[in-house]
Amino acid sequence: MTREALFEQIQQKKSCLCVGLDTDLNRLPKHLLQYSDPIYEFNKRIIDATKDLCVAYKPNIAFYEAMGARGWESLAKTLEYIPETHFTIADAKRGDIGNTSSLYARAFFDTMDFDAVTVAPYMGEDSVKPFLEFEGKWVILLALTSNKGSQNFQFTTQEKNQPLYEKVMRTAMTWGNAENLMFVIGATHPEKFQEIRQIAPDNFLLVPGIGAQGGDLEGVLHHGATDKCGLLINSSRGIIYAGDGIGFAGKAQLSALRLQKVMATTL
Amino acid sequence: MTREALFEQIQQKKSCLCVGLDTDLNRLPKHLLQYSDPIYEFNKRIIDATKDLCVAYKPNIAFYEAMGARGWESLAKTLEYIPETHFTIADAKRGDIGNTSSLYARAFFDTMDFDAVTVAPYMGEDSVKPFLEFEGKWVILLALTSNKGSQNFQFTTQEKNQPLYEKVMRTAMTWGNAENLMFVIGATHPEKFQEIRQIAPDNFLLVPGIGAQGGDLEGVLHHGATDKCGLLINSSRGIIYAGDGIGFAGKAQLSALRLQKVMATTL
Repeated sequence: MTREALFEQIQQKKSCLCVGLDTDLNRLPKHLLQYSDPIYEFNKRIIDATKDLCVAYKPNIAFYEAMGARGWESLAKTLEYIPETHFTIADAKRGDIGNTSSLYARAFFDTMDFDAVTVAPYMGEDSVKPFLEFEGKWVILLALTSNKGSQNFQFTTQEKNQPLYEKVMRTAMTWGNAENLMFVIGATHPEKFQEIRQIAPDNFLLVPGIGAQGGDLEGVLHHGATDKCGLLINSSRGIIYAGDGIGFAGKAQLSALRLQKVMATTL
Repeated sequence: MTREALFEQIQQKKSCLCVGLDTDLNRLPKHLLQYSDPIYEFNKRIIDATKDLCVAYKPNIAFYEAMGARGWESLAKTLEYIPETHFTIADAKRGDIGNTSSLYARAFFDTMDFDAVTVAPYMGEDSVKPFLEFEGKWVILLALTSNKGSQNFQFTTQEKNQPLYEKVMRTAMTWGNAENLMFVIGATHPEKFQEIRQIAPDNFLLVPGIGAQGGDLEGVLHHGATDKCGLLINSSRGIIYAGDGIGFAGKAQLSALRLQKVMATTL
């Protein structure tokens, strides 16, 4: 999906919501366990319930990988079911030496047909570039993540008093551009969004960490949005596990609606 | 596998060789394509040909993931086929927020039964610790990687003139110990091994980058080995693609033997 098409979706729906499909067999409503592929059945119902309120879906690959080959089948079927109007993100946090990163890129962009993959920056240029070489596809590079461990290395100061996450962003912006490169910036660092917008005024930011991780939605919208929004704000557990019985999809919809309403006041 | 058992294997075989099973369908000898699972057939023959010369096998997960669900089946069967005497490494370079890293750990340590997983440090403590919580299993943390892109971030200087890779090592050594934590140090930086041994005198180092990437085996053995060796030196393409016709396994064996002979002079 192009940047322009993503802007349009956001404008139409007054939403920059991304729904994280972090689907865990141990947390599914019991009535779904009778199906041959409960993960897929759950995802289908979540997608049906939320698709008018969000612009993107982001399965975290760990949840599928933990189930072995069967999980990869559930993932492929889920991806197939997501409407073409929606931006799809494989939250995989991959990164390897050049020729191996090419294979990861092939896995998510060719074998499957995701619009974007999250990529880890530690191994540098040749680990990231193979993902950028796919026409019409996106890299979403980890910059400042939402978890507590982001304190360990991402803030350590480099030359020119530059924290590592800033160096990662500035360096990666010489490899890609606003049409193929986004950054992960956690909602748990709302005070950093103004600075980050000075570094990357045009790139989309994928923002995890509202909801279960305690990030601040209004703060992110206020300090992080550009005139065309430029944000994809993710919620996973807060939406998909909003309810746990037979009415789980309705509860998920209400939870997504609450977020979309806040977004609509800004967009 | 325990550290002690790994030391014993190394001593018995006079080898610290790890064979990288980076098996690519496009590079297989043609006569294997008639089988229902050519990747597995290839790996079986490589394992049969090299098992007396090496102490570890390291499938790079990208190669299997690129084939979708089918690739995960080939991987599971390959892991099953590796003799119990050998240390097994899932070269996955994973890392995510805490609850998600737990799922990756489950994928490689529970759903499959690898001895070790390679982990990326960028997301910090809560992304690494879930892997360390599995009794008898190992984290192999990326520190100084073998690829060109290692120059981008791993060498940038932090407080106390400390390069990032050193900070990663020193910090991770407060999370794990020599019984459950190894580091990836590329053979393409042989001049760094003495310094690295001062930082981590007891931890095993997994060393990629000899062979196709041009690293220096003698230099690594000379500067990196402890009195009990403490190295796992990997070769992937240099061994498994040493030949490409019907005699590929014999050529792989000869290639492994050449490396083992060099190792034997030091061990």
